[in-house]
Amino acid sequence: MSFTYHRTIRFSDTDAAGVVYFANVLSICHEAYEYSLAASGIELLSFFSNPAVVIPIIHASVDFLRPMVCGDAIVIRLTPQRLNENKFEITYEIVAASSEQLLAKAMTRHVCIEPTTRNKLQLPDEIVEWLYS
Amino acid sequence: MSFTYHRTIRFSDTDAAGVVYFANVLSICHEAYEYSLAASGIELLSFFSNPAVVIPIIHASVDFLRPMVCGDAIVIRLTPQRLNENKFEITYEIVAASSEQLLAKAMTRHVCIEPTTRNKLQLPDEIVEWLYS
Amino acid sequence: MSFTYHRTIRFSDTDAAGVVYFANVLSICHEAYEYSLAASGIELLSFFSNPAVVIPIIHASVDFLRPMVCGDAIVIRLTPQRLNENKFEITYEIVAASSEQLLAKAMTRHVCIEPTTRNKLQLPDEIVEWLYS
Amino acid sequence: MSFTYHRTIRFSDTDAAGVVYFANVLSICHEAYEYSLAASGIELLSFFSNPAVVIPIIHASVDFLRPMVCGDAIVIRLTPQRLNENKFEITYEIVAASSEQLLAKAMTRHVCIEPTTRNKLQLPDEIVEWLYS
Repeated sequence: MSFTYHRTIRFSDTDAAGVVYFANVLSICHEAYEYSLAASGIELLSFFSNPAVVIPIIHASVDFLRPMVCGDAIVIRLTPQRLNENKFEITYEIVAASSEQLLAKAMTRHVCIEPTTRNKLQLPDEIVEWLYS
Repeated sequence: MSFTYHRTIRFSDTDAAGVVYFANVLSICHEAYEYSLAASGIELLSFFSNPAVVIPIIHASVDFLRPMVCGDAIVIRLTPQRLNENKFEITYEIVAASSEQLLAKAMTRHVCIEPTTRNKLQLPDEIVEWLYS
Repeated sequence: MSFTYHRTIRFSDTDAAGVVYFANVLSICHEAYEYSLAASGIELLSFFSNPAVVIPIIHASVDFLRPMVCGDAIVIRLTPQRLNENKFEITYEIVAASSEQLLAKAMTRHVCIEPTTRNKLQLPDEIVEWLYS
Repeated sequence: MSFTYHRTIRFSDTDAAGVVYFANVLSICHEAYEYSLAASGIELLSFFSNPAVVIPIIHASVDFLRPMVCGDAIVIRLTPQRLNENKFEITYEIVAASSEQLLAKAMTRHVCIEPTTRNKLQLPDEIVEWLYS
């Protein structure tokens, strides 16, 4: 599956160099992930505050190709991939809405665990459906 | 004039109490302000990084009526009002998209100045048009 | 009681206008509040994620007098005041560490409630001690 | 060279899962970088808003080993390494202040460019000194 999310760069995304603050590019990717979950029918509140099953990010990386400035219209293309029964990975491409020029690429890796023991758990059905939707 | 902006509460808006971090409510209001400027044809990049004329916020206040959680669909209703030739004020009402229940109210006051001397300047024409659009 | 907190403006505090993003001034004030609680012996983790008693902010306001830029050394002076058995208010003065020049003033008002019913509760003893320490 | 920065996890660092929001771990690393530059005598304001020479981050990655919660005392150990005449890389280890347990590891890669042409430039002398201090 693959999901497309449209976004405008906001003033609060930027820093004193006049461009998006580097770590905020990952927040924008996470936003796309949230929209994609919601679009697949997953209820975000219970998903992100489930006391029995959590799916934290264990790794993230991002490449910055071109700066983004306040007001820029961008598109985030998100592609999740299951790695095994506990883990999945999402790749993100951020492109300019007008020119399709690639601005940044990112990746997040997620593992399903029981929050107190931190033992690995099987990915919930709703996430498996989302992965293959 | 009055402007309506639709928004979903994101995971990055929240804090460990499970609700939107208080200061982020003002960021969400500023987002609505940015969308309203853009909708009126103002170019955000030059507006927010103009070396000759800046319109900083000199006062902000916010009342928190009900908590907002990740995934909540909210509506921000923004109403600007000119105070004099240098200043304007914006009031914001944040309501639940489903129930119209009032969640928060906020206000920001803005003054137009020359950035190095910080002397007051007349509001630019594009802002006056936005105020009365 | 009154508490003093030293802080340096960080790059992530700033926006594309080159100064601290307005809502981040309130976050910096909240940081000072957290340090003051910790200094009084309050354990922050349980304080901010107590399932039985929460003390959300119900009102905040801030006046911006002079811009703050990346690298600025600032001092936040915090003075809490009990309003009644359920509420307290904190005033904050942010001054330049070098010149003592006033840069911003802020206020937050807090109410003690039971989180599910949102009924008012008496302020916990540790907060009453903090208020009068 | 290597630099050590002490930090407490703040409420605004956290999200509704009760732990530090993933992208904020990179912001905390950047804070350590800023403190290290300042400790080496570099003036942050001019460094981060120099119109002639900018050193943006072109790549960042982070591994999350253990969750961090509000109030946690952490230590960030930063080690920069020059890659060539235009680039350097910083590795970060975040450990618990009490137990020295490793909580996260991160890396940022930086390139020196002229901001309008985006042509590569030699690293400024003050950065070369910082790299070998």
